[in-house]
Amino acid sequence: MLSEKGCRERRAALEKKIAGRADWIVLTSPHHVLYFSNLWVEPNSLAHHSLAVLAWRGGESALFVDSFLSREARTAFADQVVVVPCYGDVRPVPDRRKAVMERAAAWLSAKRPGTVAAETAYLPAALAADLRGTGAAVLDVLPLIEEMRCVKYPDELDLMRSLVRDASSSLDAVREQVHAGLSEWAVYGLLHREFVTRRCMPLSLIADIVTDLRVSGLPRDRRLEKGDLVIIDFSPYSGGYRADISATLRVDTPPGGRQVEYMEALFQARARAEALLRPGVPGREVYGAMAGCFAQRGLGRFFTGHAGHGLGLLQPERPYFLPHSDEPLAAGQVVTLEPGLYDGRVGHMRIEDVYIIGPDGAERISRHRPGF
Amino acid sequence: MLSEKGCRERRAALEKKIAGRADWIVLTSPHHVLYFSNLWVEPNSLAHHSLAVLAWRGGESALFVDSFLSREARTAFADQVVVVPCYGDVRPVPDRRKAVMERAAAWLSAKRPGTVAAETAYLPAALAADLRGTGAAVLDVLPLIEEMRCVKYPDELDLMRSLVRDASSSLDAVREQVHAGLSEWAVYGLLHREFVTRRCMPLSLIADIVTDLRVSGLPRDRRLEKGDLVIIDFSPYSGGYRADISATLRVDTPPGGRQVEYMEALFQARARAEALLRPGVPGREVYGAMAGCFAQRGLGRFFTGHAGHGLGLLQPERPYFLPHSDEPLAAGQVVTLEPGLYDGRVGHMRIEDVYIIGPDGAERISRHRPGF
Repeated sequence: MLSEKGCRERRAALEKKIAGRADWIVLTSPHHVLYFSNLWVEPNSLAHHSLAVLAWRGGESALFVDSFLSREARTAFADQVVVVPCYGDVRPVPDRRKAVMERAAAWLSAKRPGTVAAETAYLPAALAADLRGTGAAVLDVLPLIEEMRCVKYPDELDLMRSLVRDASSSLDAVREQVHAGLSEWAVYGLLHREFVTRRCMPLSLIADIVTDLRVSGLPRDRRLEKGDLVIIDFSPYSGGYRADISATLRVDTPPGGRQVEYMEALFQARARAEALLRPGVPGREVYGAMAGCFAQRGLGRFFTGHAGHGLGLLQPERPYFLPHSDEPLAAGQVVTLEPGLYDGRVGHMRIEDVYIIGPDGAERISRHRPGF
Repeated sequence: MLSEKGCRERRAALEKKIAGRADWIVLTSPHHVLYFSNLWVEPNSLAHHSLAVLAWRGGESALFVDSFLSREARTAFADQVVVVPCYGDVRPVPDRRKAVMERAAAWLSAKRPGTVAAETAYLPAALAADLRGTGAAVLDVLPLIEEMRCVKYPDELDLMRSLVRDASSSLDAVREQVHAGLSEWAVYGLLHREFVTRRCMPLSLIADIVTDLRVSGLPRDRRLEKGDLVIIDFSPYSGGYRADISATLRVDTPPGGRQVEYMEALFQARARAEALLRPGVPGREVYGAMAGCFAQRGLGRFFTGHAGHGLGLLQPERPYFLPHSDEPLAAGQVVTLEPGLYDGRVGHMRIEDVYIIGPDGAERISRHRPGF
C-alpha cells in the first residue's frame, strides 16, 4: 500500500502546481484517488461501479465513498472520510453514485470554492454540474497529474519492488509446472494461483500465454505439446499497480536449431538497452540500441513492436521506448525492456524485465528466469 | 456474449422510453455499453482506463473506441465502429480518452442533436461540455436503463445460464480438492484455475473464502485445519456478467453436533423462499419466508443480512430480498437466494443458488452441491 507521507506529499505537490489557478482539487478517477489517498477498489470488487470522490485544499482533505467501500476506506489517508449508506439489511439506496456526489457537492459548497481543479475526462457530468451550481469554475488537471506520475515516490517504488518480486517468483514457479498436455488456460490459472498464494491479495490477471505463431493475446483452449515455444507475458495488476515481466520457454525439451542463438540476441539487446537507462537519455535512443543490436545480427526484421515502456498505475505509461519518443528519462522512473524476435521459422520469443532508473543507471528489479 | 438481435432490441426499447424527450442516446458506462452493443472491456485489461462511447438514434449507431480496444470492437454490434489510434509502434497519443471523446463529439455535432440522453453519473464532464458545444441539452437516462435491466433479455439469460453452469462445476471441482493444510488463498487460486480452464475466458475473481467466525470477506493467509467449516461464496465476473453461488463444507471430516440440523434449516428456508419466486410477489415476502422459517426453528437470531438479491451486470442489483423491498418480482429476473446461519457455537454456514423467474415459478440454474 501507499504511505500516508507519500499521499500527503503528492497532494501538496499537485497543489503547488495549480497555485494561483485553482483553490480546491476534486478527483474521481480510481487510479488517481489511490495515488493521492491510498483508497483502492479492486476491479473485481462488487463495488467496482461505486464512485469515490477525493477533495482537498491546504491542510484539509475529505474522501466520500459509499458503504460498499467502507472496508477500503479504513486504510485511506484523508482528514475526513465520509461513508454514505447505500445498502443495509433493510433497504437499498437506488443510486449509489448519485448519493456520493450529492454528499461531496454539499460539503464543497459550504467551502465556497472559486475554481476547482478536476480531471474532466473522468469527472461525472452530474458532479461537474453540482460544482458549477456552487459557483465554481472547473480547471482540467489531468495533464499535471500525468506529469507527476512519471517519476515515482518512495512508497510507490517500495510497492512496485515487492509486486515485481512476487511476480518473478510466481513466474519461476509456473515454468516448473509447464508440461505437454496442459492447456494454455491452465497455465494462466497456475499464474493466478502462484501469485495470490504468495501475495495474499486479489489479482486482476493479465497474461499473454502464446504458442505457435502468435505474439501476444489471451490463452486459447489448446494443449501444449512437446517442443512448443511458449511466451508467458505476465502483468499482474494488484493493489492498483502493475508489474510486467516475460519469459520464453520450451516445453519438455531443450531449445534447438537457432533458438539458442536468438535467445542470446535477446539478452544482448537487453544489455545494450540497459546501458542507456539513465537520466537524460531520450526514449528513442533506448529503442535504437535494441533495434540496432538486432540489425547488426541480421535479425532486424524480426523485431516488431516497442522496446519497452513505463509502468506504474497504468501499463504502458510514460516513458515510451518507441522510434519517436523524445522525452528524456529521469531518475525514479519505472520501466520495462522487452526485446522480442518474431521469426516463424524459429518460433516467437520474448523476454521482459523491470527497472528502476537511478541517478547513474538502472537497477533491474525483476528476478525471474526469462530465458531457457 | 450478447447477440446482435438483443443489442438492437434493447437500443430500440430505450429509444421508445425517451421518445419525445431526447433524440440521440450517448452512453459511456462500460456495463451499459456492453448491454447495448456487446463491447466488453475486461476489468483486468490493459485498456481498463480506455473510454468507449456508444451513440445511436433510429437505425443509426456508432461506437468510438481507442486502438487498445480494437480486438474487443471486432465483436461489438454497431453500424459503425470508429477506432481512434492511440499507441502504435512509432509514437503514443498522450490522452486516449480525450482523443475518443473529440472524435465522438465531432461526429455527433454533424448530426445536430437537440437533446442527448446520457448517464450523467458516468458521462465525463469533458464530453458533456463537447455535447453542449453542439447546442445539445443533456437528459439523464440512467434510471430508465436500470429499470430495463431488471428483466433480462433472452441473450442475457443464455449467457447467465452458461456462466452459472460453469461456476457450479468449478465450485464442485474445488470442494473435492479442499483439505487441511491448504491456505485460504490457495482455495481462492483453485477457484480461478477451475473456472478459467472450463470457460476459456478471463475471470475477475470475487470470492469469500471464510473459516472461523467470519461471515464474508477475502481469504486470509491461514491454513485450513481438519474440522473447519468453510464457506465458499463464489462470484465469478466474466464477460461482463456475474454469477454468485455459495457452499459450506467441512474439512476432512463429516459434519458434527448441530451442523446437520442447521444445514437442514438452510435447505428448508431455501425451499420456502423458492416457492415465492414468481411474478407479483414483493421482495420482502421472500425475505419474510426465509426469516420466518428460521424463527420457527428458534434460529431467527442467527440469520443476519439479506435473503438474496438480483444478479446480472451488477451484484447485488434489483430485485432485493430485504425486509422493506416492496418491488414485485417479474418474469425474466435473475435472482439468488442465500440463506445463512451465523452461530459461533456451531460454525458459520451459508448456501446460495441462482434462479430465473418464469411466468409460474422459478427455475434453479445453479447445479453445484451447496451443502455437506
